[in-house]
Amino acid sequence: MAQTDFVVGIDIGGTNTRIGLVDREGRCLSETSIETNAHEGAHLLVARIARSIEELHLPLKATNALKGIGIGAPNANYYNGTVEYPPNLAWPGVTDVVGMFKKYFPVPTAITNDANAAALGELLFGAGKGLRDFIVITLGTGLGSGLIVNGALVYGHDGFAGELGHMTVDPEGRECGCGRKGCLEMYASATGICKTVQELFALRRADSGLRAISFETLTARMISEAALRKDPIALEAFEFTGKVLGRKLADSVLHTSPAAIILFGGLASAGDLIFEPTKRHMEAALLNIFKGKVRLIPSGLQGEANAAVLGSAALIWNELEKG
Amino acid sequence: MAQTDFVVGIDIGGTNTRIGLVDREGRCLSETSIETNAHEGAHLLVARIARSIEELHLPLKATNALKGIGIGAPNANYYNGTVEYPPNLAWPGVTDVVGMFKKYFPVPTAITNDANAAALGELLFGAGKGLRDFIVITLGTGLGSGLIVNGALVYGHDGFAGELGHMTVDPEGRECGCGRKGCLEMYASATGICKTVQELFALRRADSGLRAISFETLTARMISEAALRKDPIALEAFEFTGKVLGRKLADSVLHTSPAAIILFGGLASAGDLIFEPTKRHMEAALLNIFKGKVRLIPSGLQGEANAAVLGSAALIWNELEKG
Repeated sequence: MAQTDFVVGIDIGGTNTRIGLVDREGRCLSETSIETNAHEGAHLLVARIARSIEELHLPLKATNALKGIGIGAPNANYYNGTVEYPPNLAWPGVTDVVGMFKKYFPVPTAITNDANAAALGELLFGAGKGLRDFIVITLGTGLGSGLIVNGALVYGHDGFAGELGHMTVDPEGRECGCGRKGCLEMYASATGICKTVQELFALRRADSGLRAISFETLTARMISEAALRKDPIALEAFEFTGKVLGRKLADSVLHTSPAAIILFGGLASAGDLIFEPTKRHMEAALLNIFKGKVRLIPSGLQGEANAAVLGSAALIWNELEKG
Repeated sequence: MAQTDFVVGIDIGGTNTRIGLVDREGRCLSETSIETNAHEGAHLLVARIARSIEELHLPLKATNALKGIGIGAPNANYYNGTVEYPPNLAWPGVTDVVGMFKKYFPVPTAITNDANAAALGELLFGAGKGLRDFIVITLGTGLGSGLIVNGALVYGHDGFAGELGHMTVDPEGRECGCGRKGCLEMYASATGICKTVQELFALRRADSGLRAISFETLTARMISEAALRKDPIALEAFEFTGKVLGRKLADSVLHTSPAAIILFGGLASAGDLIFEPTKRHMEAALLNIFKGKVRLIPSGLQGEANAAVLGSAALIWNELEKG
């Protein structure tokens, strides 16, 4: 039997960490998930991940070769291999995560943030295959982004490029976790659309089944479901979200002139409810020379339970190919 | 005597076209300027430029080698070698400018817009030397821009990347030549600051020497000179321009995380009057992880009469090095 090369893809989230073995075609050979235990030190998490990798690896060891490890994590710095002041993990200051992994596995290892990993996942295995210029927007709790220019991920001079969630929609707008006001992710994200619904409760007289739900309980999924039932508040919330997002994407297009913008993540799974108004408002706001040229498309990985693992694996496959 | 390789740099403007022979170190060996005659057909202009190149070339011919031709022009498409619907030239539709030049000179020839050429000029010969990620903003009649990512100019999938002058400041704002409203270049440009002064005449009661000047006569230079005399309207106009520009640059930083932003062109020559408020407002608006990291610096070509020619020459030197 021929040897299959594979890499490890790791997605470190605030609650769970997913680990998978992924081949060059983006097939997940095996996969597992462990609790992140965000309050622990990083070295304890890395030790537990290493044990999981060994367990996944063991049955494959005779005939397969581990070529590298790719990691997606919040506030990851690609250039330094570090995680810096992560908001959802109790890791103080700057943590040399790549260095920790190298002690267990002497193979090429790289780290980047989850949205950048998602962009590389689309490039190698998803909706970005064959495209040289595109933007991935992840619509989850926040809004993350990864920019592909000329077939390569944009890291910028310090490794932190692609933070489109913090474009300013309104300098006097909603307070953001970053300490500033009116950031895009306070409007266009699962969190953002819940805030919009609350505002609409105040602004509108329309009946809505959502009015019975407390702010703390309300989720983006409830809003999607209400919109499918033609709830007027939920429909207006999607329209508003699409307007804010579409207008800002028109500004982003001016920077890198992408062939496509790929929407990924929980809120993107609302489908037409979010795609239609975003596309319409983006087109209306685009500079003439870009009108009708930029496709707004869903992720090619969405629905794959291991999309984040595939993204992290894509990071290291991409490194290995650069040589 | 050793042979010196050189290229031709051409800057096609609405009024004048500048032509220069430039060596690999960015030295201009000889230079000339002809009228563009914007109402003529493109082939007539190209024929006249070709004659000028021959005249410049003649005295050097024995010992020097023409390696390529680089052209900067409005609405130029790098990928196709064309100029498309230029606003200030009576060239209908799409003109194959590179093809026209190839008939005269069978050497590598490339075209891009003037702001992209300026960015490559800074990369090879100016303030961007040694940097891999920066943005050039040209503050002239409009606001042009060129993005350098990973040491290369960003063209985008269609060749039109880097149109930051059309970022939206205010969807209900000043009418722009592009047909939209509130574009950045209607505020941050020589044209923009004149408009701001007019608004301030209405808003403020302060005396100002500028009130005697008609809108049609007013220039950005007059506003600079008034500001140096502490004219309150002129000072507030620079403060406002810096605020609008600085805030939008903070959005641009989120895209490509540049090490520096280089300001170029007429309004940039106002020096501290424009740099100080732009820098201050950009810093205030930057996401924390970028604060204090992005230098706002003047062009390294500014003051060179032939900056635009050097930029166009850099375009083709850059092509020749990519091989």
